[in-house]
Amino acid sequence: MTSLRLPAGMRDFAPAAAAARRRIAETLLRVFERWGYARVITPAFEYEEVLALGLGSAAREAAIRFVEPSSGQVVALRPDITPQIARLAATRFRDEPGPLRLCYEGTVVRLDRRARSQRELIQAGIELAGVPTPDGDVEVIALGAAALAAVGLPRPTIDLGHLGLAREVLGALELPDEALPLARARIAKRDRAGLAEVLRSARGPRAVVEFASLLPELAGPPSILAVARRRPPTPGIRRALENLAAVIRALEQRGVAGKLHVDLGEVRGFDYYTGIRLHGFVAGAPEPVLAGGRYDTLLARYGRPWPAVGFAVDVEATAGALEAQADGRPAVPAVNGDGPGVLISGPSRQAEQLADELRAEGRRAAVDYGGLQGAALDAYARRWQFQEVVRLRGARSAPATPALSRGATRQPKARSSRS
Amino acid sequence: MTSLRLPAGMRDFAPAAAAARRRIAETLLRVFERWGYARVITPAFEYEEVLALGLGSAAREAAIRFVEPSSGQVVALRPDITPQIARLAATRFRDEPGPLRLCYEGTVVRLDRRARSQRELIQAGIELAGVPTPDGDVEVIALGAAALAAVGLPRPTIDLGHLGLAREVLGALELPDEALPLARARIAKRDRAGLAEVLRSARGPRAVVEFASLLPELAGPPSILAVARRRPPTPGIRRALENLAAVIRALEQRGVAGKLHVDLGEVRGFDYYTGIRLHGFVAGAPEPVLAGGRYDTLLARYGRPWPAVGFAVDVEATAGALEAQADGRPAVPAVNGDGPGVLISGPSRQAEQLADELRAEGRRAAVDYGGLQGAALDAYARRWQFQEVVRLRGARSAPATPALSRGATRQPKARSSRS
Repeated sequence: MTSLRLPAGMRDFAPAAAAARRRIAETLLRVFERWGYARVITPAFEYEEVLALGLGSAAREAAIRFVEPSSGQVVALRPDITPQIARLAATRFRDEPGPLRLCYEGTVVRLDRRARSQRELIQAGIELAGVPTPDGDVEVIALGAAALAAVGLPRPTIDLGHLGLAREVLGALELPDEALPLARARIAKRDRAGLAEVLRSARGPRAVVEFASLLPELAGPPSILAVARRRPPTPGIRRALENLAAVIRALEQRGVAGKLHVDLGEVRGFDYYTGIRLHGFVAGAPEPVLAGGRYDTLLARYGRPWPAVGFAVDVEATAGALEAQADGRPAVPAVNGDGPGVLISGPSRQAEQLADELRAEGRRAAVDYGGLQGAALDAYARRWQFQEVVRLRGARSAPATPALSRGATRQPKARSSRS
Repeated sequence: MTSLRLPAGMRDFAPAAAAARRRIAETLLRVFERWGYARVITPAFEYEEVLALGLGSAAREAAIRFVEPSSGQVVALRPDITPQIARLAATRFRDEPGPLRLCYEGTVVRLDRRARSQRELIQAGIELAGVPTPDGDVEVIALGAAALAAVGLPRPTIDLGHLGLAREVLGALELPDEALPLARARIAKRDRAGLAEVLRSARGPRAVVEFASLLPELAGPPSILAVARRRPPTPGIRRALENLAAVIRALEQRGVAGKLHVDLGEVRGFDYYTGIRLHGFVAGAPEPVLAGGRYDTLLARYGRPWPAVGFAVDVEATAGALEAQADGRPAVPAVNGDGPGVLISGPSRQAEQLADELRAEGRRAAVDYGGLQGAALDAYARRWQFQEVVRLRGARSAPATPALSRGATRQPKARSSRS
């Protein structure tokens, strides 16, 4: 017999896990819509060259590519939905003056070449195009916090970096081309000594080199921004710091439900983001549950220069955090329904009639056709989260155990007609 | 610039279309859950040999295959979710006596080699394992009708065939191996003359050949079953007809909301289905919106012999039918929310405060940061389905047009604290 294993990183979600993920995704979409974001759906794969336009180099490497059988062209499973939303915004909404607010939910597949594995993730996210001012950043960050609160993660740590700042600093350093990625890597690793070594080859102003050497340490509460703003070495760096300060000020005024953390050494997403960089962290999840930022040049790659900012929530990381916070207990019931579920045992037609009546009331109801008896029936009901067992007259089973049953004598009502 | 076209058969869904599809999928899942079905999630691709175990030959050909980069093994994007549910039922629920009720929703990709194209479809479906009697068929058919009614298609035509019957007849004909697929094709095409020609090579009993020659015409209301049952030529054929008659009798007793149509010439899905074959048709959709049946040998291919019956709803065909029935008007609003949506123009912080208050009431609200004026603001509101426009004091815009606005003077309430 064929071994039934799944490819690395692919998995099934059994009822409790699936219900938790579904509840998270639906709650997120409901919040997004309440904030005026309109849902769109994009395809699972696209021509690689179209998708790659909107991907950073890391995401391009993470895309699973194959030759489309019908055309012989290379397509890629989407490793990220944002570039698709950007493409849609720049093409189908070309004539929309904006603001454009779109949201989405879907599956992405990411390849990790080193681990020789891939992961299938569920993403739910938003994009706001056409608001270049801090108002746009603030709305997106506030929505991120509201969305996490709605799924049960009320006080995330909101980590704010600024890729425009990183861009300005690295540009003004005038490093040799080969030293640039090294400098970025050492800033990202907070490797002060290693960074100092790379910075020796910088030909830019002394003040910029000094500023850059501080970046790994400029992480902490928003007050650290004051330190950085004391002596900005170039006008571009000053503008980036002012932009970040304006966003933080507006967030503090607005009263966003989360703890702000500023990290000026944030350089991830360098080839994609242009301004604010956003990560949401919560207890119980080692990875950010939310990631995004401002990408003012992304839509131009699809033909319409239009500033945009957005984020995606990692539904799997979110479910993991909720489960960790609940000590591994499922955060939601495996099966949904209004009121307690009812399992009905007895003659099929009568049991079905009662089940239909309960369903019409919004209740969850099922008929036991399995012929389970006594304790086995009750155990089945517990396993599948039916809080009540009804044994109809004429049923084969023994009288009910009082804890689970409301009695063996319930009769279906006269059937109400439903058209 | 790279051409931004999508691969054949792939498409984006703009807000109105996306909202309709989402509403359909969520409504279906809600009904499935109300009937006691527990949601599961399965991966987008699997090892081809595992997936192929549960696919008929047509579905196997329709699977897009590629070499998984991390293992070098062949994987296939799922063309159908049922085999994955069957795998899950047979493995993870190996020790469940049953009945096992699972439901799912997800995207499948199907290749049409002749059309040199593929299609991405959204499927939502159910599987009931462990009920070998007509009770199981009846539950599944009744649930299919209830699910279609819930999405707005209240009286589907329920087309019932029986693959066990087709299997018995074709076996008893004792046709030469090469004539078997031809006989099946001609029954499917209702080609009486062509079928008669193939049947000349049959070595089976005369009565079976006569019965087989009638199959293309044995389609119509349930009463046609009486014709077929008059002289069943073999015990196997008699049993299959009795099974179908028992299911129809129970459906009529139960009062399923739909028109029953019987088609004894149904031979599609021959290598997969073993009993009842089910299609749901509605006005406005050329293709069935629902397809399924009984596949009592499918789970055994994954290691646990367990009778099962189920169906999948084609969400795209369902959306198409609803749109056709509404004369092309979108069947649902593009964006959801409780009560009319509100667009707010004015100073950012005040507008955000009012928006947050409205959202806390469950209303859909957004701030116009675009600086749109007068009629342009109202047009934007109409385009994005905000039924109200609020212009806050201090806004740059002209007084509101009465049709859309509730006035320019609304002030945010004192902000309520939300933790």
